[in-house]
Amino acid sequence: MRHNYLFTSESVTEGHPDKIADQISDGILDAIIAQDKFSRVACETILTTGIAFVAGEISTKAYVEIPDIIRDVIKDVGYTDASWGFDSNTCSVLTSIHQQSGDIAMGVDSGGAGDQGLMFGYATNETSELMPMPIVLAHRLTKRLAEVRKKKILKWVRPDGKSQVTVEYKDGKPCRVDTIVVSTQHSPDVTNKQIEKDLMEHVIRPSMPKGLYDPTSVKHHINPTGRFVVGGPMGDTGLTGRKIIVDTYGGHGSHGGGAFSGKDPSKVDRSASYMARYIAKNIVAAGLASKCEVQLAYAIGVADPVSVLVDTKDTEKVAPESLDKLVRKHFPLTPRGIIDHLKLRRPIFRKTAAYGHFGRNEPEFTWEKTDKAKALRKDAGL
Amino acid sequence: MRHNYLFTSESVTEGHPDKIADQISDGILDAIIAQDKFSRVACETILTTGIAFVAGEISTKAYVEIPDIIRDVIKDVGYTDASWGFDSNTCSVLTSIHQQSGDIAMGVDSGGAGDQGLMFGYATNETSELMPMPIVLAHRLTKRLAEVRKKKILKWVRPDGKSQVTVEYKDGKPCRVDTIVVSTQHSPDVTNKQIEKDLMEHVIRPSMPKGLYDPTSVKHHINPTGRFVVGGPMGDTGLTGRKIIVDTYGGHGSHGGGAFSGKDPSKVDRSASYMARYIAKNIVAAGLASKCEVQLAYAIGVADPVSVLVDTKDTEKVAPESLDKLVRKHFPLTPRGIIDHLKLRRPIFRKTAAYGHFGRNEPEFTWEKTDKAKALRKDAGL
Ligand SMILES: C[S@@+](CC[C@H](N)C(=O)[O-])C[C@H]1O[C@@H](n2cnc3c(N)ncnc32)[C@H](O)[C@@H]1O
Ligand SMILES: C[S@@+](CC[C@H](N)C(=O)[O-])C[C@H]1O[C@@H](n2cnc3c(N)ncnc32)[C@H](O)[C@@H]1O
Repeated sequence: MRHNYLFTSESVTEGHPDKIADQISDGILDAIIAQDKFSRVACETILTTGIAFVAGEISTKAYVEIPDIIRDVIKDVGYTDASWGFDSNTCSVLTSIHQQSGDIAMGVDSGGAGDQGLMFGYATNETSELMPMPIVLAHRLTKRLAEVRKKKILKWVRPDGKSQVTVEYKDGKPCRVDTIVVSTQHSPDVTNKQIEKDLMEHVIRPSMPKGLYDPTSVKHHINPTGRFVVGGPMGDTGLTGRKIIVDTYGGHGSHGGGAFSGKDPSKVDRSASYMARYIAKNIVAAGLASKCEVQLAYAIGVADPVSVLVDTKDTEKVAPESLDKLVRKHFPLTPRGIIDHLKLRRPIFRKTAAYGHFGRNEPEFTWEKTDKAKALRKDAGL
Repeated sequence: MRHNYLFTSESVTEGHPDKIADQISDGILDAIIAQDKFSRVACETILTTGIAFVAGEISTKAYVEIPDIIRDVIKDVGYTDASWGFDSNTCSVLTSIHQQSGDIAMGVDSGGAGDQGLMFGYATNETSELMPMPIVLAHRLTKRLAEVRKKKILKWVRPDGKSQVTVEYKDGKPCRVDTIVVSTQHSPDVTNKQIEKDLMEHVIRPSMPKGLYDPTSVKHHINPTGRFVVGGPMGDTGLTGRKIIVDTYGGHGSHGGGAFSGKDPSKVDRSASYMARYIAKNIVAAGLASKCEVQLAYAIGVADPVSVLVDTKDTEKVAPESLDKLVRKHFPLTPRGIIDHLKLRRPIFRKTAAYGHFGRNEPEFTWEKTDKAKALRKDAGL
């Protein structure tokens, strides 16, 4: 492992087309499981100029008016005006939904995993939320971009936006912000000078931690293309599941490839990734290691994971092999066990679909609790 | 880093719905850059029962009949019969394509990166292709699944399929295959017993390396749901860019989140990931390290990367800091430099869209060449 280096992570606002797609997929999921918590939902969205198309496999007793949910999400995100590139009231909404394949249902009904696959969870003690610093800072910038728009602090800001933060690490710890990239969609009448001044004052400075951010030495790239009036689905086609690194750890640690949004918790891509984070976070919170990565892997239709790997990247205070045993003892790893323990059969998913699934402190994010740390510590003899 | 552990990777066949979407996106890209190599292409596909929908941003002088390309790809993949769940001749083909945003084009025309973002490349000397063992074995299984179908060795095999391989590592080296999962779509008339026997004999045994595979101790999960007749887009909605870990290193190392298929090489998500692999592979081939991961990061509209990180995971033979310098000296890192060096303005992409973008030995895969190894070695004083 390098100890001195630059590491870059990015985030996007809720108005980014891929993120609108994620929020639509999770909005539909929430509406359905609010009525029937055992529904099977796999719901994918694609957005382009004037069109929102939703397709997928849904088996449920619920009845929901999907086009209304789609329009509501687009409205909440802020695209309510054709002159901004997309209008929730007048865009075309297409749906093509069928039931879950009976062949898959067969394997899942008996408690087996809804798909094969590999999932990772990560935690590090470099921030208080036990998340890597670069992704934490990148999310702060995009959240603030949405806030200055919604609170009308900066009237020229429009919904689509992106951020990127390069952090310098010394001796494995974040010591300095090196580079910041911010791009935001804007009204046609604002000057680049104004954009730069406003973003520095209202978005970048208030989001950066004093100790790491020296405005005179940081390299800033603010709207570096020079113009970003066309935005949202008109500037870039959006799809569900295409921001999976923004959704997780910003490129720190590994990813299994599975997307989260639109998937009910019988899909291990989602539920086992949440469990893997919960495990990793509790191990770090317990002080058993300062970094922890957990890999789980499943076979479709089979309840128990085919492999479990706990990697503490040489930061552990106890033997790595003993951690494997601790994990199997303290954490349920079957789809049913995970769903019950983390209370995932609830309409809590739309919130997760922007600004990251991890490192959040809202009460619905049960996988962020460190309620196992004490027992782990005791059991490890620390 | 753990030294003794199990690690799992997966692959899917060219008939998997997400992979059909990738191949359609790259099929369109190839057809367009074959006529106009400076075209800007961002082409996304979604597939569900009876529908292929393609959306995106394309600016080109070429004229191509997109619906024909879509039908051709679906036909090549093998979905030519409604009774298999999808028929290339009669499925509905929808397209909604517009030009690249003029605001983005402005930043790209001057040689800047087509988007912000982070990209990783990885290499390890654990296989001759300098790829991690689990993903190599997972691809062998899915490639062989397609082969036994196309060569009619197993007449009951249909296009959709998946594989997953769990490998045991000892002292950081692959020592044994622990678990294999294979699911393949099949005709309704074949028995599970036959499926198991045929796959063991014609797919699994011939794909596994003798030294690592002991059939009596390996756990096999063959079509574990018990039935997989419904497959392809009818069983699961497919989208471009949703198999990004199958496309890369199977979960070994990090991922920046950007997808490849459908993107012309001015998009750094693709071209810089290829360059990062080329760098990592040449460093390992040069013997400067036995594992290497490279992170590059860009700001939209800016040509030079905002950060470059070479991490040899404590396996380096030379000082890590000197590797950073070697990389900047020997490898072009601007979008233009990358495109020229790797000759990416050619219609070579459809091939990459199934069975992995890396570890391949076809001549088009210029990023797999180790032609810089000698110079690197010399310059490092080895
Ligand atoms: C650059 S676009 C991706 C490439 C695009 N599909 C194309 O065909 O060029 C990715 C994201 O960048 C942001 N973006 C769009 N227009 C932009 C502009 N003019 N300047 C900076 N960022 C922009 C949006 O958030 C968009 O979703
Ligand atoms: C299990 S599906 C994903 C979940 C699906 N969207 C749903 O709603 O249940 C993912 C992939 O598994 C494979 N698959 C589909 N049907 C299957 C079956 N009956 N048994 C095993 N694998 C199957 C296909 O390759 C498919 O693309």
